[in-house]
Amino acid sequence: MQPLNVDFLLVGGTIVTMDAYRNVIQNGILAVKDSKIIWIGTKNQESNQFKPAQTLDISDKVVIPGMVNTHGHWAMTLFRGLVDDLTLESWLAKIWKVEAAVISPETVIAGSELAMIEMIRSGTTCAADMYWHYTESCDSVRRAGFRMVNGPSFADIPGFEKRQDMNYKAAVDFLDRYQGDPLIHLCMQAHSTYTTNQRMLEDIVRITKERNIGFITHASESKGELELVRNKYGKTPIEVLDSVGLLGEKTLLAHCVHLSDAEIEHLAATNTSVSHCPSSNLKLSSGIARVADMVHAGVNVSIGTDGPASNNDLDLFHEAQLAALVQKGITGDPTVLPAEKVFSMLTIDGARALGLGDWVGSLEVGKLADLAVIDFDSVNLTPCYNLYSHLIYSASPADVCHTMIHGKMVMQNRQMLTLEEEKVKSKVRQIAQQIRLI
Amino acid sequence: MQPLNVDFLLVGGTIVTMDAYRNVIQNGILAVKDSKIIWIGTKNQESNQFKPAQTLDISDKVVIPGMVNTHGHWAMTLFRGLVDDLTLESWLAKIWKVEAAVISPETVIAGSELAMIEMIRSGTTCAADMYWHYTESCDSVRRAGFRMVNGPSFADIPGFEKRQDMNYKAAVDFLDRYQGDPLIHLCMQAHSTYTTNQRMLEDIVRITKERNIGFITHASESKGELELVRNKYGKTPIEVLDSVGLLGEKTLLAHCVHLSDAEIEHLAATNTSVSHCPSSNLKLSSGIARVADMVHAGVNVSIGTDGPASNNDLDLFHEAQLAALVQKGITGDPTVLPAEKVFSMLTIDGARALGLGDWVGSLEVGKLADLAVIDFDSVNLTPCYNLYSHLIYSASPADVCHTMIHGKMVMQNRQMLTLEEEKVKSKVRQIAQQIRLI
Repeated sequence: MQPLNVDFLLVGGTIVTMDAYRNVIQNGILAVKDSKIIWIGTKNQESNQFKPAQTLDISDKVVIPGMVNTHGHWAMTLFRGLVDDLTLESWLAKIWKVEAAVISPETVIAGSELAMIEMIRSGTTCAADMYWHYTESCDSVRRAGFRMVNGPSFADIPGFEKRQDMNYKAAVDFLDRYQGDPLIHLCMQAHSTYTTNQRMLEDIVRITKERNIGFITHASESKGELELVRNKYGKTPIEVLDSVGLLGEKTLLAHCVHLSDAEIEHLAATNTSVSHCPSSNLKLSSGIARVADMVHAGVNVSIGTDGPASNNDLDLFHEAQLAALVQKGITGDPTVLPAEKVFSMLTIDGARALGLGDWVGSLEVGKLADLAVIDFDSVNLTPCYNLYSHLIYSASPADVCHTMIHGKMVMQNRQMLTLEEEKVKSKVRQIAQQIRLI
Repeated sequence: MQPLNVDFLLVGGTIVTMDAYRNVIQNGILAVKDSKIIWIGTKNQESNQFKPAQTLDISDKVVIPGMVNTHGHWAMTLFRGLVDDLTLESWLAKIWKVEAAVISPETVIAGSELAMIEMIRSGTTCAADMYWHYTESCDSVRRAGFRMVNGPSFADIPGFEKRQDMNYKAAVDFLDRYQGDPLIHLCMQAHSTYTTNQRMLEDIVRITKERNIGFITHASESKGELELVRNKYGKTPIEVLDSVGLLGEKTLLAHCVHLSDAEIEHLAATNTSVSHCPSSNLKLSSGIARVADMVHAGVNVSIGTDGPASNNDLDLFHEAQLAALVQKGITGDPTVLPAEKVFSMLTIDGARALGLGDWVGSLEVGKLADLAVIDFDSVNLTPCYNLYSHLIYSASPADVCHTMIHGKMVMQNRQMLTLEEEKVKSKVRQIAQQIRLI
């Protein structure tokens, strides 16, 4: 039989599939052709049936599904470490002032590119973004070969009345423009229930129904938000979203720090997903989300870094570790959120939260080839008794050596292939010079 | 004037001194001779007065005092990731079984060397150890050129009745052996008040007084411990230690998760230090120490990783980040434990906790040259508005490029100089093979 031409053959490592059976394959091979995984097996069986354009020897390494960051504001890398250790009011006042002064298509592209480099370096292959100038960030995603979930973001915030893009027509124009893009997965977004008006919510409901696309918003992040929404609607944020028909399997709610038992049950019953952002929630003193309770109730909980102004990095390994540790600490039960479950939150559960569960989040034949290769030789991963334990409690971005998205290598041997790292850092430092003067 | 011969001249970077004024020197130079820092200044002023054996160009880099890990059980790197997500009882049962089977001078040396490599790689230059076969670990420290605080560790645990080293004579013999060693700083240790008997505590009091050395013990780590000590003594662990005269400026208490207001006040009044170990406390569901309250009351709080079986790494950057984030989350006040304060807990406060405040923990003329050089060019540290913020919220071990201890480079350009990393990892993997069979 003629060997089959493939783009990549990864040979010899351990493959953590995160498929339904949580299969882990030792001495594996994984073949990639035309953006997809077309074969997964063990080395001895099938290595010869492929003629790869490129072979990657991954002996002593571990292949994982590319991690999924379900909530963030990418271009806020520009403000990394600018405002720390402040009350939420002081933090917001400073951030809004700086954003008003420097945010432009050009600066958003630079900040988004910096974010993508950091995510690719840490094995993240897909992320949701919610920020201004999303057309420009989508274009930068196309150039970088990253996978993004994005869409028009509606917010009724003083100072933004004159924006032309927060209406049905502008949103639909944007969605038409990127429809069918293999790397840009479309959704509708609202900043929150306290910063959107009734017309905006109605437009969002209409568009998500017409286009059968997802919806992302911040919900129940802080006690202050609950009070604002209570004053505006006489309801909780979850109740407001429910009343307009915006809960369901295509909805992802970021934060969900303050939920009642009934709300947790309702999110589970409606198959609404949650993006848990522990660093940000702790750093801004928003509180601690009831993740163990949500998982126990059957809610699909994924993990997000939130923006780098409140984190301050885009490192999902440590975000996941934090999620696991804090839940054990506050519940008094060290068995909650075991490592394998938390790793599923980083991968397949994250993909499902973004409506991409059939396409990414696990390594399976037919799925898109989004993956990362981890070097398990590092001292912090020695010795190794349990892969999931190391991925959650000991691994760091520096342990990632290759990252592939949509069947293309975007980082190989820790070298960025699609983004010019030095140029991007230099540009961001120039923008930071302006920010220092504000 | 004849230029002065020095061993090293670090030239051109930013020096975060952590001196009493928290001076940060831009475009600095730092000269090292015979284990000590003999000059700190700015480049233009004084660069020519020195004739260095080796010059390190550290432009665009940041020099920090070597970080101080005030609590750990180094050789437990052997059990990294072996037992996770279990109740404390199941965790202890497994660890004790494995320890009984594999712990020997040889395995302790391998585990300790692995720990030192991981600490050196992450910019830690000084650490306390509490473990078996401490003579052998002290000898491995001498070979590695690491700085250690260690001493006889008393424990009255079933199965250990026959040990010959838990008495006055054996302890004094050990202390005599290492007296005056420049890298091994001596103390007495007790596992805890619930695992020591009256005779052991009396011996410890006698020895620490005779020799004017410090004392380290676990205290008030879990609710279970409080109950055991209450049953044994009718007191809290802090009250037991106080009653025998073991609180004071030479005492360091690890954990202190469960303290009353009065106990916090008493630790402050007696100048007793605390080693806060947030990862371990959360992972084992021991609880959350009242660090913000302790700091507010004036207690000297430092940071420890605890052993890698309950962490699972020795990364002080993320330990410090966790300490800061969790306190903001549970107090509801984002201004508690600001980055600069937490960095002082990692450096000068840690040195003071171990009785070494006059020698290490800050970069000052006359102090020992224990330092780390951080590469601020990495994407996760770009852009940079605030050094302390990045050190606590964004830095990772991979950002450390050089580490110096006692005036000698132990890692340069990320290459280990005193320890054979591949050999140590290989040895530990052999031991792990035995552990898997237990």
